[in-house]
Amino acid sequence: MKNTAKPESATLPLQDVQIQDTFWSSYMDLVHQVVIPYQWDALNDRIPDAEPSYAIHNFRIAAGVEQGSYGGLVFQDSDLAKWLEAVAYRLATHPDPALEEIADETIQFIIQAQQKDGYINTYFTVKEPDKRWTNLHDCHELYCAGHMMEAAVAYYEATGKRAFLHAMCRFADYIDTVFGPDEGKIHGYDGHQEIELALVKLYRVTGEQRYLRLSQYFIDARGQQPNFFIEEWEQRGRTSHWVPGEFKPDPQYNQSHLPVREQSTAVGHAVRAVYMYSAMADLARLTGDQALAEACRRLWNNVTKRQMYITGGIGSTRIGEAFSLDWNLPNERVYGETCASIGLIFFAHRMLQLEQKAEYADVLERALYNNVIGSMSEDGKHYFYVNPLEVWPDACAKDPELPHVKPVRQKWFGCSCCPPNVARILASLGTYIYTVNNDTIYTHLFVGNKAKVHMNGLDVLLKQETDSPWNGNIRITVTPERAAAFRLALRVPGWCKEQPTLRINGQAHTTLQVVDGYCLIDRPWQPGDVVEWVLAMEVQFIAAHPFMRANAGKVAIQRGPFVYALEEVDHAAPLASLSINPTQLLTARRDASLPGEPIVLEGILHQEASAHALSEDEPYHVFGTTSAPTLMPLRAVPYFMWGNRNPGEMAVWIRTNHNDY
Amino acid sequence: MKNTAKPESATLPLQDVQIQDTFWSSYMDLVHQVVIPYQWDALNDRIPDAEPSYAIHNFRIAAGVEQGSYGGLVFQDSDLAKWLEAVAYRLATHPDPALEEIADETIQFIIQAQQKDGYINTYFTVKEPDKRWTNLHDCHELYCAGHMMEAAVAYYEATGKRAFLHAMCRFADYIDTVFGPDEGKIHGYDGHQEIELALVKLYRVTGEQRYLRLSQYFIDARGQQPNFFIEEWEQRGRTSHWVPGEFKPDPQYNQSHLPVREQSTAVGHAVRAVYMYSAMADLARLTGDQALAEACRRLWNNVTKRQMYITGGIGSTRIGEAFSLDWNLPNERVYGETCASIGLIFFAHRMLQLEQKAEYADVLERALYNNVIGSMSEDGKHYFYVNPLEVWPDACAKDPELPHVKPVRQKWFGCSCCPPNVARILASLGTYIYTVNNDTIYTHLFVGNKAKVHMNGLDVLLKQETDSPWNGNIRITVTPERAAAFRLALRVPGWCKEQPTLRINGQAHTTLQVVDGYCLIDRPWQPGDVVEWVLAMEVQFIAAHPFMRANAGKVAIQRGPFVYALEEVDHAAPLASLSINPTQLLTARRDASLPGEPIVLEGILHQEASAHALSEDEPYHVFGTTSAPTLMPLRAVPYFMWGNRNPGEMAVWIRTNHNDY
Repeated sequence: MKNTAKPESATLPLQDVQIQDTFWSSYMDLVHQVVIPYQWDALNDRIPDAEPSYAIHNFRIAAGVEQGSYGGLVFQDSDLAKWLEAVAYRLATHPDPALEEIADETIQFIIQAQQKDGYINTYFTVKEPDKRWTNLHDCHELYCAGHMMEAAVAYYEATGKRAFLHAMCRFADYIDTVFGPDEGKIHGYDGHQEIELALVKLYRVTGEQRYLRLSQYFIDARGQQPNFFIEEWEQRGRTSHWVPGEFKPDPQYNQSHLPVREQSTAVGHAVRAVYMYSAMADLARLTGDQALAEACRRLWNNVTKRQMYITGGIGSTRIGEAFSLDWNLPNERVYGETCASIGLIFFAHRMLQLEQKAEYADVLERALYNNVIGSMSEDGKHYFYVNPLEVWPDACAKDPELPHVKPVRQKWFGCSCCPPNVARILASLGTYIYTVNNDTIYTHLFVGNKAKVHMNGLDVLLKQETDSPWNGNIRITVTPERAAAFRLALRVPGWCKEQPTLRINGQAHTTLQVVDGYCLIDRPWQPGDVVEWVLAMEVQFIAAHPFMRANAGKVAIQRGPFVYALEEVDHAAPLASLSINPTQLLTARRDASLPGEPIVLEGILHQEASAHALSEDEPYHVFGTTSAPTLMPLRAVPYFMWGNRNPGEMAVWIRTNHNDY
Repeated sequence: MKNTAKPESATLPLQDVQIQDTFWSSYMDLVHQVVIPYQWDALNDRIPDAEPSYAIHNFRIAAGVEQGSYGGLVFQDSDLAKWLEAVAYRLATHPDPALEEIADETIQFIIQAQQKDGYINTYFTVKEPDKRWTNLHDCHELYCAGHMMEAAVAYYEATGKRAFLHAMCRFADYIDTVFGPDEGKIHGYDGHQEIELALVKLYRVTGEQRYLRLSQYFIDARGQQPNFFIEEWEQRGRTSHWVPGEFKPDPQYNQSHLPVREQSTAVGHAVRAVYMYSAMADLARLTGDQALAEACRRLWNNVTKRQMYITGGIGSTRIGEAFSLDWNLPNERVYGETCASIGLIFFAHRMLQLEQKAEYADVLERALYNNVIGSMSEDGKHYFYVNPLEVWPDACAKDPELPHVKPVRQKWFGCSCCPPNVARILASLGTYIYTVNNDTIYTHLFVGNKAKVHMNGLDVLLKQETDSPWNGNIRITVTPERAAAFRLALRVPGWCKEQPTLRINGQAHTTLQVVDGYCLIDRPWQPGDVVEWVLAMEVQFIAAHPFMRANAGKVAIQRGPFVYALEEVDHAAPLASLSINPTQLLTARRDASLPGEPIVLEGILHQEASAHALSEDEPYHVFGTTSAPTLMPLRAVPYFMWGNRNPGEMAVWIRTNHNDY
């Protein structure tokens, strides 16, 4: 058996969850048939008119099988690592010898590129071999190492092959000789957090305590005074890898402004932050460190209750791809990087393993069903790095403050961290559905699947069938290997405002025991017991807290896990001239004209009659001097689908024309 | 007589207009008693806790009376020039020997700093004497020269003293030997337009055609291919004065992307643009160049009908302090530089001299009464560089995209172009009130004053008395030296939506001849004839064109020339949680609690009851689940007064809660 998960892990091994779902199976197929091959082409610089990756090129040079010079940014290795991780997740559930052969060959190059001491990094190997570990702030060596470790763990778990894992253990062993509190070691840590969570995974599959301790060291050292990055910057002569001139590191940028246990507000680069918080939650769980757990809770609350877009996007400013301040969530100049929402999912997933509260799963679901899958086009070959909630294409093209906001998805990026991140999270969807704690099976996501749970010496088969996410009917067949008492915990999603209907073997249960957002079902289970769990999935108009100034007087539309959006192709520009009466009932209708027959929402909008009737030579006019608004049909599509038809304006938040509360 | 204006100038000499006005006289006094002395201290680096200017310091070094090194930005000379120009305007109407002595001494240093060939620029004289004219794109040599010429012209016109004028003519003569189409000259022009309009002034007082031709040359050469600045950049080795590394000039930034006669859309740095358009309008008038006049009209329309804030602010983006695109006028991240609105006034004033259309005066008034005077604090010692229409102080402090937006006015700036620009435009207010064309006296602004007009051999005294801008009663006593027929043209302001009342010597005239926004009164005038001109000054709710997406669903409040604003000190934060019913009648009330007893506007606002009742842990909630809005008194103050009390939020545009049009 390939499952090497240790007992403290509360997730199910990926190969024990087979997804069979009306919504997600097509994503799984797309990842296999399109995304992984397309990204392989991208990593090999074979996409016409796209920015080259150089990732394979760099490894071939470092491995000595190709001549040439290093190409791309300093962290291109990580794109290949994430792609390999995605491949591993695919192979875990769907063996594919041809794909595995490509992966094996690629891993061979990586191992060939490994230096005698264990070091792997094509930039420093090829381009600046004497500069290793001299600019941790800018150069992502440990970040790339972390991604390679994640890939190696996934590949080992998927295939049982140990070569890649062994190489990465050698690298980790070497890193352990370089970094740490001991004299003679570098008392530092990476400019981009990632290795911390990767070392926890390496510890999980190897049981090697040193890896856990090294992760702890990196987490504990960060933010201690004097600041490592300032000292490092002084030592290397105040230079920067990225820009000419002196550019003093800002400790907030990579969350080294305070010891992590003293942090309460999410600051700085959003991806760095959530990758770090994920490792903190891992360590809090594995070590029982309550101060660390408390910091995780504070940071979770700040991120998700003060600084998160309704789509699950985080990082509101392009400057530093960063958090800015509480309640500051401008829509048109949002950043909302895809990787940041993926990191938020990692954080949520780990908080769920630390403590079982449905709010973590709510956020996980929100980010996954909106920001993350919305970042990829229907064809699997185009991606958003920035995920806006409001788009005016002319402004994206001409306003120098909006160069990051693209009205259409792109083929690839010079900095292409997001596309392979999407590939790996989609390919590993199965791990996010359940967790198991003691004698409880938690169901977090409603996704059709067959899963095998091993719990206290008991094997339980679960078969989840559902018409979710379009509707809220879930049917779980529970088949323990023998009759046995245990607890099944079903999430009551935050969007479900009515009490769900629960039937067991056809019999309704009206008194539900709901704790922390989970309905707890304790009973002696017989093989083949059927649980029906019906969630009301009403269309909801959502208002933002008034402190969130950008959304004052506006509503968003939500149904189940999906946030909806208006597109110009269904309406008229400017979308800002449209308003909605949120006391109307919208009609939810399957739309066969769109791929996947999504549920679109239909109703009525008001359009300012003046929009085209007014002279364009009158920028300002006296209110009340134009004609009455006209009515226009509303057709809202799920946010994740926007931008797959004619490019144009898009808006998530819509002005209300009715102010009764 | 000190009036040296040539006949083609349609403005009145400043010394012929004595302002005596309930609103503006206090500004005149403030400029004299506070602004000029305060800025003199600033230029001498005597303001505690303010960024130093170095302007006097640099001139003393260049003049050889002080040792030291150059301080400040490359264009600090211009701040002193603008201050001297302001002093000159003050002296023109109010002799002040002590002030004149300071000015004379300062001018002496400037003349001492002049090089043998006529060159004046402290940066290049002190710091890089061998680099003269090598980086016109970045280094503002001709810009500083232009400001010195403007100051010299003003000082000569005010005092009759020729030394400064003579020095600047020598400089202009030298520049004429360096720049131009002839072989051996630099076929270039400045990176920051300014000298073009200054040379027109120099031509006006000297009658020297070469200065007009040089101005024409600079205007005609700009935007020709190949682009001068790209070639210059290549020639100097692709360096920049401002940033390390290669930084290729963007021709749009300084409007050198196209020959000026082919430009239709305002692009690039807003101050550069409007200074250039001003010179273009001057040249179109003086040379009869119709293609140039047409370009001015196109650019005027684009600036004022597509890219101007309701406050008369222009330049919507901080990136390049620039125009962005039509209809893109975000409120919270606005730039709206003070200097840009001052330049817009220059442009409007010159268009009024080219052709008498009230729309030019409407914009001039809008920019003056809102953006420009709003940029200075009531105490005359604090200034805005950026003039926002919406302020959330926390975001200004923490959002890295808003570092330019200050919630309170500043003592001085490292780049302090704006404060002395305000001083010079306020001190020269008298020139903006009237223009004279053939036998017509145009009254553009309603400001109490006594003016002397010389027209076709006839002297006419005008006495304007008014309670404007707070109310719309104007009384003009017309006293020709003898009975004579001529035309008086009175502006019908754009904000006056009812037909004004006209009485002559007490007798009402109900049929008005209004052409291009001016009421034309043709009659034989007797000494002492009294014209009464009564403008309805209603409170207006103003809506923006729907293409202006930032203001969708919002109104601004305007009364007469004033745009109004809401401040947190009178209401509650967040201001975004307040909304207004624009069908209500607001009460206009003199408020003795505020300096100058302005008219404040009072009415009712709705405040979302949820603003403080909602849990801050619920960023999103289902619409309709909170309590009804509560009522709150509205108290709107004139925009120009905002930020003079407790710092806090401010908003010009207010959400409506009533959508009947």
